[in-house]
Amino acid sequence: MKAADIPPGTTVHPWSYEGGRLRLLDQRRLPHEEVWLECESAAQTAEAIRSLAVRGAPLIGVAAAFGLCVEARRVASRSPEDLDVALSLASERLAAARPTAVNLRWAVDRMLRLAEAGAGGRVDERIRSLEWEASCIAEEDRLACLAIGRLGADWIVSRRNPKPAEPLGLLTHCNAGALATAGIGTALGVVRALAARENVAVFAGETRPFLQGSRLTAWELLKDGIDVTLLPDVAAASIIASGRVAAVVVGADRIASNGDVANKVGTYGLALACRAHGVPFVVAAPTSTLDPACPDGASIPIEMRSGSEVTFITTPSGEPVRIAPEGAAALYPAFDVTPAALVDAIVTERGVSERPHAAALKIFSTGTA
Amino acid sequence: MKAADIPPGTTVHPWSYEGGRLRLLDQRRLPHEEVWLECESAAQTAEAIRSLAVRGAPLIGVAAAFGLCVEARRVASRSPEDLDVALSLASERLAAARPTAVNLRWAVDRMLRLAEAGAGGRVDERIRSLEWEASCIAEEDRLACLAIGRLGADWIVSRRNPKPAEPLGLLTHCNAGALATAGIGTALGVVRALAARENVAVFAGETRPFLQGSRLTAWELLKDGIDVTLLPDVAAASIIASGRVAAVVVGADRIASNGDVANKVGTYGLALACRAHGVPFVVAAPTSTLDPACPDGASIPIEMRSGSEVTFITTPSGEPVRIAPEGAAALYPAFDVTPAALVDAIVTERGVSERPHAAALKIFSTGTA
Repeated sequence: MKAADIPPGTTVHPWSYEGGRLRLLDQRRLPHEEVWLECESAAQTAEAIRSLAVRGAPLIGVAAAFGLCVEARRVASRSPEDLDVALSLASERLAAARPTAVNLRWAVDRMLRLAEAGAGGRVDERIRSLEWEASCIAEEDRLACLAIGRLGADWIVSRRNPKPAEPLGLLTHCNAGALATAGIGTALGVVRALAARENVAVFAGETRPFLQGSRLTAWELLKDGIDVTLLPDVAAASIIASGRVAAVVVGADRIASNGDVANKVGTYGLALACRAHGVPFVVAAPTSTLDPACPDGASIPIEMRSGSEVTFITTPSGEPVRIAPEGAAALYPAFDVTPAALVDAIVTERGVSERPHAAALKIFSTGTA
Repeated sequence: MKAADIPPGTTVHPWSYEGGRLRLLDQRRLPHEEVWLECESAAQTAEAIRSLAVRGAPLIGVAAAFGLCVEARRVASRSPEDLDVALSLASERLAAARPTAVNLRWAVDRMLRLAEAGAGGRVDERIRSLEWEASCIAEEDRLACLAIGRLGADWIVSRRNPKPAEPLGLLTHCNAGALATAGIGTALGVVRALAARENVAVFAGETRPFLQGSRLTAWELLKDGIDVTLLPDVAAASIIASGRVAAVVVGADRIASNGDVANKVGTYGLALACRAHGVPFVVAAPTSTLDPACPDGASIPIEMRSGSEVTFITTPSGEPVRIAPEGAAALYPAFDVTPAALVDAIVTERGVSERPHAAALKIFSTGTA
């Protein structure tokens, strides 16, 4: 047991905004090198989001918010009307960069409402106000991660086997960590909160085809000194069956009002394995990931990415290497939907929802009971 | 509908034994190039098996049987006692090359029994007799694949939805095809038998980390003109949930007497997804894969391969490319166990076993009711 009063933290900070300059850690180059992209327009920011240079539902919301700030600065010397047109076009472009994560649309809409409220005001004041709002979105996400970490850790400890295995085994998928948020992460926020209290052993699915687990989750946990073991995604079910996993903890890209969860493809299979073996399946996400307007998983648009991301692998030097025969077709749905009935807990910064989720999620998304 | 009387076949033949020469298609080089390995000793054959140059439970049994033939020829000029010592040592080496597939031990034991029965005889006659036995093992496997294909296709058609989707969707994992057998394949034998009757759409999991699906299954189905679409393994559960899959068909490396099935890691997760959506889960394997001495899945040794097969990927030129950060650990159990209760059908050349499997498997493995 470690001292329970060490707050969980991270040395990983994938973005910065200083002096009107937005810099994003290019996650396509990890774990091989730390290259920073400078985004000088909303178009560049949208391209960074589309190309997965920056990814993770909460972080792409933060990046899009600051993308609107750099866009406002870029057109500041023109007329006030130009600013409104530019922000409106940029919002559409940013929100359309990826379809599944609702945080992206949520952050853009929040910025746009502020911009519309300030229409007619002085351009420099409007820019400062946009920058303040974007900073609030980021700071709220940082604090949400800390709250999610503490609440999720408490929930998992309350559900653990009375004779727990040592160390505490946690399995995660994709990357819902510091690289996906403006804080310690959502799923990895829970992991970091538990690691601050006791010894943990993290199993990370490599997450084909983009390898977020191998390239990102392993990288950020190693950087913070947390024990991590990679698995081929296909090995997760047998590791869960083996009894070495106390809980599976994943993030989310969108949560419907009935509790159905869209997250990185492969999440649904983990939930099925958890249910078969009585292992808690935990989704960790800020309330900005809740979509009250979305009734269920069937209504969530699932991004289909190019089959070439399955038939080619990219080397550290950026060279695409074919791994399938020429002429082979491939399907790559980037997300899947886990039905609410398989989700034991949805951990938000406002509290933990247990099955059935609809009532608690309604309270969390409005902030009032 | 195609004519039902076209027998299923294949243009893929991954081995040959002629004039005392054993040649194996190096499957590590597929799909990029067709390179043949010449095995001039049992040690070389064992290394080809260990290194996955030749793989697939039935085919490694065939390769090991011919590996004993080339070993016998290699030592033929020495004394008869030397032949017996060489065959005994070679048998151990071949059987130990990989631990999970029972066909390997089965084929080696069958050859060794013959060798022992012939002890004291003329060396040239003993070699001819070993070669005859190895040819029988291969020919029996070829015929078993044809029978499995026909029986499995009939079973799937009997279970299909009365308003079937067109084309018939079949999902497979790893490679249980012509590249894994001496015939049209086991799981892909069923696929080929169905493709000879009607339009099929095959979904193939890429099968990380060795990518047997991308490199081998896609290659051999494209070569035979059968429609195939690759999936990241993690996408299988959502494709099954979508209703596009009429049946999942996989091979097996060992089947315990209670019907528990050891197969390529990832198989168990597919079986869980099938059960959740009422999709038939079918295992296709020759009776040489049945292990009557093994009571259940917990008794099957699961090969643990090197974590470096997860943290590195090999380019077509053979160069290992790191995909995980330095210092990252990885676990790679090469197989998993699917409990008998999740297996709807076990298709052998002697018949189809439905749940519960124990009684039928006993009949199939002894050949008598």
